[in-house]
Formats: sequence, structure tokens, C-alpha cells
Amino acid sequence: MSVGIKDFGLTCGTLPSGTLNAVTDVPGVRVGHVTLRDGDINTGVTAILPHGGNLFRRKARAASEVINGFGKTVGLVQLDELGTIETPLLLTNTLSVGTCATALIREAIRQNPDIGRRTGTVNPLVAECNDGPLNDIQALVVSEAHALAAIEAASEGPVEQGSVGAGTGMTCFGFKGGIGTASRRIRLDSRDYHLGSLVLSNFGRAGDLVLPDGRRPDPRRPTEAESGSVVIVLATDIPLEHRQLKRVARRAGAGIARLGAFWGHGSGDIAIAFSTADPVDHDEKRGVVPLQALSETRIDALFQAAAEATQEAVLNSMLASPAFEGRGGARRPSLADWLRASA
Amino acid sequence: MSVGIKDFGLTCGTLPSGTLNAVTDVPGVRVGHVTLRDGDINTGVTAILPHGGNLFRRKARAASEVINGFGKTVGLVQLDELGTIETPLLLTNTLSVGTCATALIREAIRQNPDIGRRTGTVNPLVAECNDGPLNDIQALVVSEAHALAAIEAASEGPVEQGSVGAGTGMTCFGFKGGIGTASRRIRLDSRDYHLGSLVLSNFGRAGDLVLPDGRRPDPRRPTEAESGSVVIVLATDIPLEHRQLKRVARRAGAGIARLGAFWGHGSGDIAIAFSTADPVDHDEKRGVVPLQALSETRIDALFQAAAEATQEAVLNSMLASPAFEGRGGARRPSLADWLRASA
Amino acid sequence: MSVGIKDFGLTCGTLPSGTLNAVTDVPGVRVGHVTLRDGDINTGVTAILPHGGNLFRRKARAASEVINGFGKTVGLVQLDELGTIETPLLLTNTLSVGTCATALIREAIRQNPDIGRRTGTVNPLVAECNDGPLNDIQALVVSEAHALAAIEAASEGPVEQGSVGAGTGMTCFGFKGGIGTASRRIRLDSRDYHLGSLVLSNFGRAGDLVLPDGRRPDPRRPTEAESGSVVIVLATDIPLEHRQLKRVARRAGAGIARLGAFWGHGSGDIAIAFSTADPVDHDEKRGVVPLQALSETRIDALFQAAAEATQEAVLNSMLASPAFEGRGGARRPSLADWLRASA
Amino acid sequence: MSVGIKDFGLTCGTLPSGTLNAVTDVPGVRVGHVTLRDGDINTGVTAILPHGGNLFRRKARAASEVINGFGKTVGLVQLDELGTIETPLLLTNTLSVGTCATALIREAIRQNPDIGRRTGTVNPLVAECNDGPLNDIQALVVSEAHALAAIEAASEGPVEQGSVGAGTGMTCFGFKGGIGTASRRIRLDSRDYHLGSLVLSNFGRAGDLVLPDGRRPDPRRPTEAESGSVVIVLATDIPLEHRQLKRVARRAGAGIARLGAFWGHGSGDIAIAFSTADPVDHDEKRGVVPLQALSETRIDALFQAAAEATQEAVLNSMLASPAFEGRGGARRPSLADWLRASA
Repeated sequence: MSVGIKDFGLTCGTLPSGTLNAVTDVPGVRVGHVTLRDGDINTGVTAILPHGGNLFRRKARAASEVINGFGKTVGLVQLDELGTIETPLLLTNTLSVGTCATALIREAIRQNPDIGRRTGTVNPLVAECNDGPLNDIQALVVSEAHALAAIEAASEGPVEQGSVGAGTGMTCFGFKGGIGTASRRIRLDSRDYHLGSLVLSNFGRAGDLVLPDGRRPDPRRPTEAESGSVVIVLATDIPLEHRQLKRVARRAGAGIARLGAFWGHGSGDIAIAFSTADPVDHDEKRGVVPLQALSETRIDALFQAAAEATQEAVLNSMLASPAFEGRGGARRPSLADWLRASA
Repeated sequence: MSVGIKDFGLTCGTLPSGTLNAVTDVPGVRVGHVTLRDGDINTGVTAILPHGGNLFRRKARAASEVINGFGKTVGLVQLDELGTIETPLLLTNTLSVGTCATALIREAIRQNPDIGRRTGTVNPLVAECNDGPLNDIQALVVSEAHALAAIEAASEGPVEQGSVGAGTGMTCFGFKGGIGTASRRIRLDSRDYHLGSLVLSNFGRAGDLVLPDGRRPDPRRPTEAESGSVVIVLATDIPLEHRQLKRVARRAGAGIARLGAFWGHGSGDIAIAFSTADPVDHDEKRGVVPLQALSETRIDALFQAAAEATQEAVLNSMLASPAFEGRGGARRPSLADWLRASA
Repeated sequence: MSVGIKDFGLTCGTLPSGTLNAVTDVPGVRVGHVTLRDGDINTGVTAILPHGGNLFRRKARAASEVINGFGKTVGLVQLDELGTIETPLLLTNTLSVGTCATALIREAIRQNPDIGRRTGTVNPLVAECNDGPLNDIQALVVSEAHALAAIEAASEGPVEQGSVGAGTGMTCFGFKGGIGTASRRIRLDSRDYHLGSLVLSNFGRAGDLVLPDGRRPDPRRPTEAESGSVVIVLATDIPLEHRQLKRVARRAGAGIARLGAFWGHGSGDIAIAFSTADPVDHDEKRGVVPLQALSETRIDALFQAAAEATQEAVLNSMLASPAFEGRGGARRPSLADWLRASA
Repeated sequence: MSVGIKDFGLTCGTLPSGTLNAVTDVPGVRVGHVTLRDGDINTGVTAILPHGGNLFRRKARAASEVINGFGKTVGLVQLDELGTIETPLLLTNTLSVGTCATALIREAIRQNPDIGRRTGTVNPLVAECNDGPLNDIQALVVSEAHALAAIEAASEGPVEQGSVGAGTGMTCFGFKGGIGTASRRIRLDSRDYHLGSLVLSNFGRAGDLVLPDGRRPDPRRPTEAESGSVVIVLATDIPLEHRQLKRVARRAGAGIARLGAFWGHGSGDIAIAFSTADPVDHDEKRGVVPLQALSETRIDALFQAAAEATQEAVLNSMLASPAFEGRGGARRPSLADWLRASA
């Protein structure tokens, strides 16, 4: 595990974390990064896979919540209609969503030659934040090969955090942001389940951040409009129907708000939640299919877990990022440095 | 069975009807009416019950679709959040929704003395159309006793149609409207299921009606703005998750549009769909619950059934209504008379 | 002004308050209460009026946001379709929404005898929280006369807070809750505008409350499921189109989340936002109507104001409520007492 | 004008058409096509521009309606949050949305070098249908150059219809589909306005089509699942706020349903509506901006126009398309031939 809030004596809420304190505490979930750093280029791609098999053939049940829609996510229309994810989920910079979508399409066809022939088409899923302040985003350097490399790199186990993958050039509350993750363990019917959150943090006005203990870290930069964005990916192995997944996804917004954000106008704040339980078989032959769902009376545990893990994942994304110098010499301090100095 | 489109040589689509050609072809579903006719008073209440037991204890899975929201339905916020119906569904005139809601609350407390004490509150469900042109709607004559009497009268078997219950004072495309119903039979996994539609029809401009054979019945009244409303209740015994129920509910709008309506500004067009499969136990003890859901690839059969049965239910509501004289001598011709005259 | 967070050295955010620090800082807005206390009866009605004239004739532009839909609000379907409020907004206990809706209907007919005759019907607007733990909610004591009395009592100027009106029997984070309000002043084009928030607070698990300074007040009661609910009414004189009002309404959820809530399953969390600018004339004769709207690039000020004022209004609702003994001797401590003791 | 329903004695509704009977009857609106036909390649790109200037600098007010979300449209999240279109709208085949999005991004940067530097990013807008049955869609032949060429080709005046641009390889109710358009003229306050519809038609089961006169054309092909999709673009010069635009967009679904469709599971049915009135200035300096909006009581005229023009545009898309031979010799008959033969 990389550095996290516990290393600084902070806690978010009361539920216990999973072993890795990562989205990968949910069995089967994989994460991979491709990081691009070269002069003014500071960007990348992060891939999240609900499982390691053919996602088009065995789709993950999913839902999304648009907390604030100033964003360019690709794939949400179908995700919300059908309640499934059928490609890896890619995170990248705003202007690279088209290229990443095309990469997902080509890869899906390679694995499933019946797409667009004997079966329907495929719905690529790509989310983004604007890393323009630290990256030459106009250069459009992310290629289809980078997108595929992030998928190829995806693995179970610990998740690299901070200025890595899609998080390379991100800014959060005036500090360096990026990729962060955290998880919560939930006990149901004498069995342990997990809910994990992975964030791409790029939101929040400098000066607005509130730590769980009430402190307000100051990155010593002039206040400016909240822009950027945040993508939150929630994964769980608890069986949930679409409506429940959407309710859980919504609580990511509470985690963000606890940090002092108000979901600013210019911030594309998007949450996507999926369950690894009961995947949907593309070639299902039965008319009526058995599945499972959480009893609604227990859902508060997931709401709490989603809020806590998302709040912590954002903090972890900042704590794992050292101070950074990006495009044109623009600098972002490290929240970890601020905490060490104020200790 | 009361008079219907088949008696006039008309058909809506290609799927077969159930035995009763009514929403009550879905096992367990009950319908009851209270009709109030006395001079300028022409109104009433219609009750639809997903089953004959304690609905608060065993809730029906449900979803709604607001086709056009110029309407005063009570109960949709919670229905859409939790995906359940926990009281009978009452239909009545627009200004009586408050009284009917209070009646449902009192009856739920009577059956479940723990409401508002050791368990939560109850969500009454009431939909409405404006029968003001034929009824002295300002008189607010519907009482809590009337609402309870409609529930008491609810039974399985054939459904009385036309100017009955909530349909007593309704107008449709310039003809007399009211309560109508129809059903479709759907075969899945070597078993017969049903989808039924019950409508409270009170919409459509005079002159806009298009019959399934292309004819355009003319009620010989001056064209006026589409107002009124239509409530569509879809019931099925096919297991569906909330997202699927919402997709099915939406297709009620297609059935209405095929009749020549464009979901007019002043028309509160509301669809509510429920499944009698896998009811939700209020006192569920398990954390994870097994259930079933339709394989999405088969859902077109339900979409088609919802559109066809709704189109037919509206026509049946008109065909079952004789010519009518209402408040202040206002008259509405019968579509059945028009068809007989034009044969 | 009644007691508020400033009396305890607390601040919510950075924007300045209006003169009254109340929803009534928005010119024209009126608030009135009827409080019912008698043994086990501890409930009431609160009325909010966008202006003092005929609301059916001059409707306020409005939008709603369902933060969590475990609630029984009446009137949101039409409010969201047409973007207007055309009656006073009443707050009361959950089981009295039907009675209050009927009272609003009768009063609208009295003022506008053409309703249901020569013009359409009226859309009553009633929101609620469950005061069952402190009130004999099964008694349904709120009458139509009480509803009208709250409207009659509505006035501009300071707003009574705490255990008053609909807030009489409410509980918040284990402390006594109720009615609270706060406002923010916003400068645009060299002119002062206001955004005010009025809440009916009845949500939050005991032990989850986080103060703006990071402290966690403990009401010394066992933790239980978050239930109850919260209704948030946002008013502004800034011209906003419906889409913008909905964006502003959503930020009420951020204010709630900052207090430690995660919008619990059993909590009906509903926000309604309206603007007093450019009311909609029921009898409009023109085809195209001039109006105004905020430039979207300035909307962050309103988002921040909505979050801050809502957070503060909830705290004020608790601080203005002394310790309380309700139904069957159930007690709720006062947050003000806790703060005084911990100072 | 190309061939249309009037050439076959058909009419859709009662409102008069504009001079061109095309979306370009709305002043300023431009349409351009790039058609790709070469052996198994039968696809293309169609561009719709709300005006001929810099769309990023002067955004068109817009809204969308997802009639059925089995589709891969890019750009709707932000369009619905902010209510604006800020690039040309491109239509193409399903697997080319990524490439077209990237082309729009690059072109926006070329025209606005401050994107991703001193101002925010840009939201590309691309909609699609699956032309796989007639086109080698796996070949991904659409290039960024093709996308730009369609924009370059865009002009006011008559619109080429049928198997052209994105419509080249489309199928509708078993007949050849493609691009179609129609318009309606609406009089308000003694002035003429227009609403135009442009469709990319690729939906409907063979045998389900119903003509306005009740006839059911038979393409003599076996019935198969409704798949494909339909994109409907509605344009008007009537001032409408976002909520009103969304209401109008929804009525495109009524136009589709009148043709016999039920918005099949596999059909991505998406409507986008925009107004050319009161464009939004990206560099707006004022805090409060004057604008205009239709009086809601007049909106039925637009609902009717949207339904009629969409129904007619789909028929025109088929009538303008001769019989077609596509990928692997797959054939689609022409509806015009069927009508001539059945006359």
C-alpha cells in the first residue's frame, strides 16, 4: 500500500477498511496505468476492469450518477438504460476521450468478431478530467496504443496512487491530485463483502479543503474558480440491482462534499458504480434469470461506505502525490508536505 | 367481458390477449370501483391492488414514467426511489387526491399499527385526471369512505369499463372516455405470462383520434386544446427489476401516441408499472435476497405488449362508454355510436 | 433574529449573510407557523410563500431536487414539468400531507373560482418529515384549518426557528431539530441579491454530526439508523431559468453532507428552489415573453451560498430548539446546551 | 426539394410546412454530408450546425431526450447540464463516434486556441446509428478528415435526403432508410417561426410500419428484432428555455410511435432539440442576461410540430432512398417503389 490518510493520523468515518484499502479489495477487480511524462506532457490513462475475462460476453451490472454534468464522459447513455458495463472503464484527459473510445471499440471487435456483424455494437466507457493547467492537453498525445497498454497493465493487488496514469497532471484543492483509492468492509449474512472507491481527483478551489479533523490546508495559491472535475468509480461484490447501484453511486457526492466542495459549476463530477455479482451473459438463452439483490433495509452500510471511501480516496490521491512541476513550470504543492510541516 | 375493439372489427397489434383481456389476467390483481352520479356530480374512485394481502407488508415491485408531468399524482417520489408500491393504487379526480391519500394512510395504519411507531410511515399512491368539464369538481364530493369502498369492492375477474369509478366523468378525443383495460399473453421458458393495462382516459383533442385502421372519428365538436390527462397502470407477473419496469412503463406513451396524441401540454400523462413477482417483504431479515428478472434480450415482447394493450385499453374505455350528459348539460358522444353509424 | 451559529462562534463558509440571516431576506418571501403542542401531540404546519399576492395567477419559477426519495412530498411532478409553484408551500408531518393538499386546493378555488371550470386545476405543494418519535402522528390532528392558519400567519421579517410549526416534533442527529433558516448576500452587476435557505430538519444519526470546526457533538443516545428526513427550501431574487434552479437546489445536498450525513436510506431529503424574479402570469397573452437569467459563469456564487446557508440553517434549527420532551416522555437534548457545556 | 410524402399523396398532421420543408427552414441552420460508398463500405458523416459562426463562442441553447438509451451518443451529459451545443453536431455510424469526437475537438482548438489553456475544454457532440447490416462497420473507415469535410460541406438551403452522409447504410422498417427532413411553420405574435426535424432513420421491424393513411407497407423480409436506432434533431427559431426544449425533444418519440415503432430494446432512439434564439456568449461579461422564452400556454403548437415533422422526416428518409445493395450483397427495397407498385 502506498501512503494514505492513516500515515497522517486521519480517519474518514467508522467502517473498517479492506486488506489493501483499495478498489481491488473487491475480488476480481483490476487496475492498470500508463503514465506519460515528458516536458510539458503530463497525462496518461488508467483502466479499471470489473473482472479479468471477456467483459462484452459477461457484463458487469452498473449505474452512474452525474453529480455535476460539466464533463465529457462517453458511454453513460447506454450504461444507464441497460445497467451494464461491457468494456474496461478508461480514465484519461478530457480531449482524449475519443481516442480511448476508439481503442476500446477496436479491442472489443478483436475479442468478439461478431460485433457489428451477427450481434450488436459495443458501448465504450471513458471518463475524464481536464489536466490542461499541468499538461499540454492540446497536444492530444494519448494514442490508442496507450489505452490498450493501460488495459494490458491492469492487475489485482495494490493500486499505485498519486501522479500516475490519468492522474499524472491533475490538481485538487490547489494541491497535486491524481489517482486515489480506499475501501470498506461490510458484513452481511455472516460473510464479508467490500465496497471500494477509486477516484481521479481534479476538483476543488484552493482554500476550500476541509480535513476530517476540521483543519483547512492552505496551498498558498490565490483562490480561483472551482474547475477541473472528479471521476469516482465504486466497485462492490454485494449483489445490487440497478436502482440500488444508482443510489450507492449518488453517495459519492456526499464524500466529495465533506471535503469542502460544492460540486462547482465547471467541475464534471461523475460517479460510476458496479457490482461484480451476477454478471449479465451476452448470450443468455433463458427468458427469466435468477439473481440476487441486497435487502434495501441494509443499504445504509453501503451509503456510509461509499461516502467514507470516496472521501478517503480523494485524500489518498493527494497524499500519494509529491510536489509537482508541470507545463510551463506550473507548480502544485503536496498535501503530504503541508501536513508534515503543520504537524 | 364488456364491449371492446373486437366487437367493432378492430385490432391493436399482433400479440394474443389474455382470457379476460383485462389487467386482471395477471393473477392476483384486483380492481374495484365506486361511482358517484347525482346531477352535476359525475366522478368516482377506482382501486387497483397488486394482490389481495397486506400490501404494506408485501410490497409490489414498481416503477413510474412521467410522460407529461402536468399532473398531480401523489406517491411517485418514493415509488421511484424504492421501487415499490405499498398501498392500493387509487384513481380519482384531480382535486380529490388529498382525501384519497389520507384514506390510504388511515387504512394502512389500521392494518399495520406499527406505522409511525416502531416502523416508518407509509407512502399512499393516488393518480388523477380532471373531470371538471363533466363533474362539479369544486364540490370535492369524494370522501375517505368512498376511497375505502373502492378498495373494498376490488376483486379478481372481469373489469367493469367505461363511465365507472374514476372514469365516470372523463372525456377522450372529444368522445366519452373513462376506464378501459386490455391484456397480452407472453410465452417465456415454456410458460404463459401476462401483461395487462388499465387506463383512466381523459386526453386527446377532438379530431385527433386515429383508429388502428387509419380512420379518424369525428365527435363533431370544435377543436380545443388537449387537456385532461391519462393514467396508465401496467401489471405483469413477469419478474422485472426496477429499471426494466421503468422501460416497460415508458412504452405506454407509444400506445397513446399511436392514437394520435402528442402528449399535450395540459395533459398529465402518467404510467405506473408493477410486477407481482418477488414481492418485497417489509420485515425481511436476510441481507441478500434471491429474486428473478427477465433476460433483457426478451424485453421487446413486453414493450410491444405495453404499447398494444395501452392503445387497446384506451379504445375500450371509449367503446364501453355510452353517450353521456354531465355537469350543466354538457354532452359527450359515444365512440361506439360513431362506429356503428359509420359502418 | 433568534439564536444562531454566530452566538456560538461558529461560521459556515465565507459569504456574508443578509440582514435577517433568513429566507425572508429575499424580498417578498413570507413564512408562517402553526404549532400544535398538547400532551403526546407535538406537530404543526409551516407555510412559505414566494410572494404575498395570488400565487395561482402569478406563479414563482421553481425546481426541485430529490436528494433521497424516501419521502411523500406532494406536487413535485408538475413543479418539475412546468417549473412553477402556484400555491403556498406547506411543510408538515408525513401523514398530514393529504389534508394540507386539500386545504391548498380549497383555498386556491376560493381565490380563483375559475379553477376546474374555465381554467385548469391547481397543483398543491406539500412537503413533510416524520415526527412520529415525538408526536402521536397516527392521531392525524392537523386539520385544513391549521393549514390555512399557517398561510394566514405568514409574514415578511424575522423567522421564528426551532420547535415551531412543522418543526415542533422533529429530531436531528439525536438532538432536537425543527425549523431553521439562514441567508447569503450575492453581488451581481453592482446590485445586491440574496439566497435564503429554510429547513425542516429531522435527519442524521446520533453521533454523525460534524460541526464546522470539526467537533462532533454527542447527544449520548445509542446510534440508530438514519431516518426522519429533511426538507430544504431555497429562495432567491436572482433571475434563474428552471435548469439553473435545479442546479442550485442540488447543492442543498452538499450542505447536508458537510454536517456528516450521507443521505440515509430512510431519510426523505428533498430540496425545492424558487426565484421571485419574472413570475409566470397564468393569463399571459403574449406568445414570446421577455425574461432574465443569470449568466452561467456566475452560478458558483449561488452554489456556494446554497451549500453554506443550508448547512447553517440546519445548525440554527438545532440551536434554536431547547431540550424537548415529546410523546410518551421521549426526550431530545438541545445542541445549544451541549455547546454551552463543552465551551 | 427531393422527393417526399406529398409526392405520394400522404400527409402527416395539419400544420403547414416551411418553404423548404427542411430543418434549414430555420434561419441559419446548415447541413452537410460526406458519403462513403465503395464495395462493402456504405457509410458517411452528416453535420448539422445551428449557425455559421464560431459555435464555441456563441453556443446554441439545447436539450436532449433519450427515448431509448441503447445508443452511443457522445456529449449529452454536458448538453443536459449546461443546456448548450458548442460544436457542430455530427451523425455517423456507431463505431466512428470516437473519431468524429476527436475531429470536433481538434477543429474547436484550431478556431479557439484558448481551449484547455486560458478557458475550459470543449464538449464534442456526436450521435450515431449502427449501419453494420449494409456497411463493413468493423473497418472504421470514417476519418477525422471526413468529419471535417461534412462540416465544410454544410450549407443553408435544400437538404439532400436518403442514402447520403450518415444515412448511406441505414435501414428502416425493412426498407432503405437514411437522412430525412421536414418542417412546420408556426405563427406567434404576428410573426412566422419554424420548427424543423432532421432524422437519421435506422429503426423499426419489417412489417411494423404504418402509413398516415393506415396502410402497412410490407418489405417482404422475415420479421426480426427491432434494432438499429434513430437520431432526431429538432431545430427552431422560437425562443425556448432548456426545460421547454426538453419537452419539445420528447415529442419526437410520439412522431416515431405513430409510424408503428415501440422504441425497441435494441434501438438507440435519441432526440436533440436546439433553438437559434438568444445564443449563449462564451465570454459573457454581464451577471444577469436578458432573453426570451415561449409562453408555456403556446407550447402545444411546438409539440404538434415536433411529432408531425419527425413522422414526416422518417417517411421522407425512406422515400428519398432508392433500392440499395450493401455489404455482402444485402438488399433493401425502396418504400417509394412499394408505394408506386401499390398505387
